[in-house]
Amino acid sequence: MDTSPLALPFPSAPMVAGVTPRVARAGYKDWGRCDLTFVELAEGTSVAGVFTRNVCCSTEVELGREQVVLGRARALVVNAGNSNAFTGYRGREAVEAIMGQVAAHLGCEPSDVFVSSTGVIGVPLPKDKARAGLDAVFVAPECSWEEAAATIGTTDTFSKGAVATAMIGDTKVTLVGIVKGSGMIAPDMATMLGYVFTDAAVDPAFLQRLLSAASDDTFNCITVDGDTSTSDTVLAFATGNARNAPLASFDDLGADAFAAALHDVCRQLAQLVVRDGEGAQKFIEIAVTGAKSDESARRIGLAVANSPLVKTAIAGEDANWGRVVMAVGKAGEPADRDTLSIGFGGTWAARDGQPLADYDEAPVATHLKGREVRIEIDLGIGDGRATVWTCDLTHGYISINADYRS
Amino acid sequence: MDTSPLALPFPSAPMVAGVTPRVARAGYKDWGRCDLTFVELAEGTSVAGVFTRNVCCSTEVELGREQVVLGRARALVVNAGNSNAFTGYRGREAVEAIMGQVAAHLGCEPSDVFVSSTGVIGVPLPKDKARAGLDAVFVAPECSWEEAAATIGTTDTFSKGAVATAMIGDTKVTLVGIVKGSGMIAPDMATMLGYVFTDAAVDPAFLQRLLSAASDDTFNCITVDGDTSTSDTVLAFATGNARNAPLASFDDLGADAFAAALHDVCRQLAQLVVRDGEGAQKFIEIAVTGAKSDESARRIGLAVANSPLVKTAIAGEDANWGRVVMAVGKAGEPADRDTLSIGFGGTWAARDGQPLADYDEAPVATHLKGREVRIEIDLGIGDGRATVWTCDLTHGYISINADYRS
Repeated sequence: MDTSPLALPFPSAPMVAGVTPRVARAGYKDWGRCDLTFVELAEGTSVAGVFTRNVCCSTEVELGREQVVLGRARALVVNAGNSNAFTGYRGREAVEAIMGQVAAHLGCEPSDVFVSSTGVIGVPLPKDKARAGLDAVFVAPECSWEEAAATIGTTDTFSKGAVATAMIGDTKVTLVGIVKGSGMIAPDMATMLGYVFTDAAVDPAFLQRLLSAASDDTFNCITVDGDTSTSDTVLAFATGNARNAPLASFDDLGADAFAAALHDVCRQLAQLVVRDGEGAQKFIEIAVTGAKSDESARRIGLAVANSPLVKTAIAGEDANWGRVVMAVGKAGEPADRDTLSIGFGGTWAARDGQPLADYDEAPVATHLKGREVRIEIDLGIGDGRATVWTCDLTHGYISINADYRS
Repeated sequence: MDTSPLALPFPSAPMVAGVTPRVARAGYKDWGRCDLTFVELAEGTSVAGVFTRNVCCSTEVELGREQVVLGRARALVVNAGNSNAFTGYRGREAVEAIMGQVAAHLGCEPSDVFVSSTGVIGVPLPKDKARAGLDAVFVAPECSWEEAAATIGTTDTFSKGAVATAMIGDTKVTLVGIVKGSGMIAPDMATMLGYVFTDAAVDPAFLQRLLSAASDDTFNCITVDGDTSTSDTVLAFATGNARNAPLASFDDLGADAFAAALHDVCRQLAQLVVRDGEGAQKFIEIAVTGAKSDESARRIGLAVANSPLVKTAIAGEDANWGRVVMAVGKAGEPADRDTLSIGFGGTWAARDGQPLADYDEAPVATHLKGREVRIEIDLGIGDGRATVWTCDLTHGYISINADYRS
């Protein structure tokens, strides 16, 4: 698979105090690469997580939801090549075996060990391969973030990472995030897995609040094809090794800066997933303003972002604002046809429910030829706003998902 | 555009007493074919209608919603080549001019004249072309249903009609339906327009009740790409010329038979739209059973039918039941992973949340090679059931909607 034309280089990512990533080869698939990632976390690490809303979620997600409530983590294990979803009790036994083996190795509780899996569905994760893979990874050297990002990937065409820093009082804290998704190839499942590691000291409940808020504006504002994986997971780990005064609320010094840095990392990671969407040739930002509420704006943006007719129009570099009107109207959100305006790259094509008499398509045509396309939608009925990101829908998507039989 | 490989021949459709279709060329587009359909209806004709839920609907839809409440119709005008949607007051004036001209011609109220338009968006319907077209169609000879079906079409690859009869007491009544949709080509909008004509005598309120119920199980159970047109309209006209004892409730003799015939015509028309889906190579029926309710089953069926990953898998003749599991789980409806079963063409691939140990993919592979594919989904949590219809997602869809610039 060729690297996405929208790929960005992996950033210069420093190690994070209290976080030790290692990779090994469990051989979940017959591929000549590492596929097991093990991240050891310092004692006292806080954790927060957001998970797929798909009802048919994997065991890993079910357990993860319970574990984040406890707020403490000592390790993360990511299996690539097998999602272990829809595998019943055998899949659950495999995850519990991994948690037990790591807990014994680190001398912690099994509930301190977070497990994610991504890849083929309906095949129980092979316990023997997981066991041997863990034995190998326990003695592997510390790896770089780029190696870890590559190892959690499956059909990703490039490795994805993001970095930010924040000052908490006089203490500089570092945040590093890695993510995989959402290149998919039959019979794999689309899965987005994202992990953010920081040396900041943050109370688990507050970390959860910040991660949930950041996800709403970032991971929940991207879409490739509107399909929701059974395994989607984002976890944030805070080791506290930076020894800042612990953050427990927005009243604490530096909380705003940390929240902004976390949001920044999540936004970068979310956009990187879109940049690796199957068959993507264009990165599309959809800015919605004037909606009834922010949530309404987000739903309208996602309706546009998920419209096959809008996505194919952008692929064809066609300023087909009628399709945007259609997608706004079908979103099921408050809208008034006669106050609706649609633009591309800063040029209005239609205002207040009618095509502009002096609409000049030339700058729009130039804008649409680029790799980065922006669609502006003003509802004209309120102050709600949101920005969502997606990619175009191309022959490449069909080829990846239909042409190659499993 | 080649005829869809899923096309069916136009049925042998008799004329309906009290219904006179005529066609003419208004020249809405530069094409050498008729594009204006005028159907005159006997005095006393009842009417019922269902319309798009798209908030950005056309003037035609806005007016039509008001007109059906009155329950009476004398004429139907369908303009092909211009949807007149998103055209502000100029578009509204054009529709009102058509209603006025027909009302003067027939000596009826403007509100007795129903107008639909389909085609390009954002261009006000040219009033002069409509006026000249009506003048021509008023003196045109009566045409066949097949000619009328061809004339309401835009990018349809074949003409679509359906016929049914019912006995009301000793009186045989006839129902004929025509429909257009949903081949789309930039910059046209997807629009589904459907019309059912019968000589039965039916009270308007009862006709509305029957049409709404039939639409829920038919027109509202099809999807090509999940996009909702700004102009979708289905109208039923009952002239009463068969002189049966008028139907006003299910207590009336023959009401059940008429309802069944109306449902049958709507189902046939709905399926014909799917058979002309852009790029469709396979007709897909999705049967959902064991859901919490019928409505929940319908939503789950549509979530599967709208999943690009499921549709591309079928295009690739890939029995990828994991993608069906994913789509069920994302529907936002009650479901239990551990009681969920998925099958293709009568063969279970997964039962009760796990792949079947003795799953034989051979009959499934054979089934998927055909033009007609059936996906079975059993939720195992209730008695709700629904059947929805869609087509596969192919390179043809991308080519139609992206490759050709407007």
